[in-house]
Amino acid sequence: MKTAEKILLTSLTLFNQHGEANVACVDIALELDISPGNLYYHFKGKEIIVSALFDMYKQRSARILVSPNAESMNLISFFDYLRQLFESAQIFRFIYRNPSDLVDKYPLISRGMKQLNSSKYKAFETVLLLFAKQGILRATPETIHALADMINLIFSQAQNYGELTGEAIDDSEYIEHMLLWVYHLLCPYITDKSKTNLKTDILALAS
Amino acid sequence: MKTAEKILLTSLTLFNQHGEANVACVDIALELDISPGNLYYHFKGKEIIVSALFDMYKQRSARILVSPNAESMNLISFFDYLRQLFESAQIFRFIYRNPSDLVDKYPLISRGMKQLNSSKYKAFETVLLLFAKQGILRATPETIHALADMINLIFSQAQNYGELTGEAIDDSEYIEHMLLWVYHLLCPYITDKSKTNLKTDILALAS
Repeated sequence: MKTAEKILLTSLTLFNQHGEANVACVDIALELDISPGNLYYHFKGKEIIVSALFDMYKQRSARILVSPNAESMNLISFFDYLRQLFESAQIFRFIYRNPSDLVDKYPLISRGMKQLNSSKYKAFETVLLLFAKQGILRATPETIHALADMINLIFSQAQNYGELTGEAIDDSEYIEHMLLWVYHLLCPYITDKSKTNLKTDILALAS
Repeated sequence: MKTAEKILLTSLTLFNQHGEANVACVDIALELDISPGNLYYHFKGKEIIVSALFDMYKQRSARILVSPNAESMNLISFFDYLRQLFESAQIFRFIYRNPSDLVDKYPLISRGMKQLNSSKYKAFETVLLLFAKQGILRATPETIHALADMINLIFSQAQNYGELTGEAIDDSEYIEHMLLWVYHLLCPYITDKSKTNLKTDILALAS
């Protein structure tokens, strides 16, 4: 692995563990056992590292977001799609730890965050509207707006909430927990014939 | 107003505006036009100020949390109860800005945060279970568990989510938005006869 890649990977691990605000460039250099000068040669400051990681996250998410052919999606493939997005957010979880501070501190990523957030919202809304059209869901556009917004809230904030409740966050349990929240959110709107075995299938996805 | 009170009030305003991590004791002293020594005479460091504010929030929330006589509550009084809790959290909103960092940095408030969070969850669950018993809601205990958890998630994370989406956060709109989320969450479980005019009544609460 090249030094630049190693630096990004180590930064990601440290940011996820301690929060971006609590990790300085010198900590990253120490962890890698390289000199701060060598680190600086590759990345001119923490903002550049944070931006590079954010770009990686954005690209990864964008690939998942555009992938679904909404027309051919069913409920379980929608949950699988959510699972992929959740997993991606888990890998870059420092981004959702204190979004307000990150956006205030790094104007470079502030616009990207808003764009990503609105793309996610739109992707969720598109699929749910199509489900309503196909008779998989029974919900008005107004309700679908609220549902897509709440899925996005769960998506971006479940981790902070977990810190508040003090629940141990194990990666796989965590994703199961988030998927079940979305399940409970959508459940009353799902028409009976589409509901068969859904919960079991979701739990199988997360394991 | 006494100096100690002025210090707390100014700290709260600055923490809410800029985030607790971005405000130092010297900023608070500057804003109040007092010497750092005078500030230190009243509060021996930022942790003491943060703890004092957290205690104020905890006491205020506890008063609201114990107040409801669950037995005599109806849907609209439940939403009014939520409104009071939301308003209280708005006043001390810096607490929910980056809970993970706050809990890591200040062990003093870490336990208090978890306790408060679990009291809120339990209060929501108790009322919802009673509603189910009275036939106001039609939901299993498992669903009620998920609903109480999601109300708590909305409660504690809607602000961070607002920062991500970049929505301008005006205090009264904000509370209306949160109450409508809870409305959409509970709506499919509310029995028809309990649903009349509920949304209009909720909007009247928030205005």
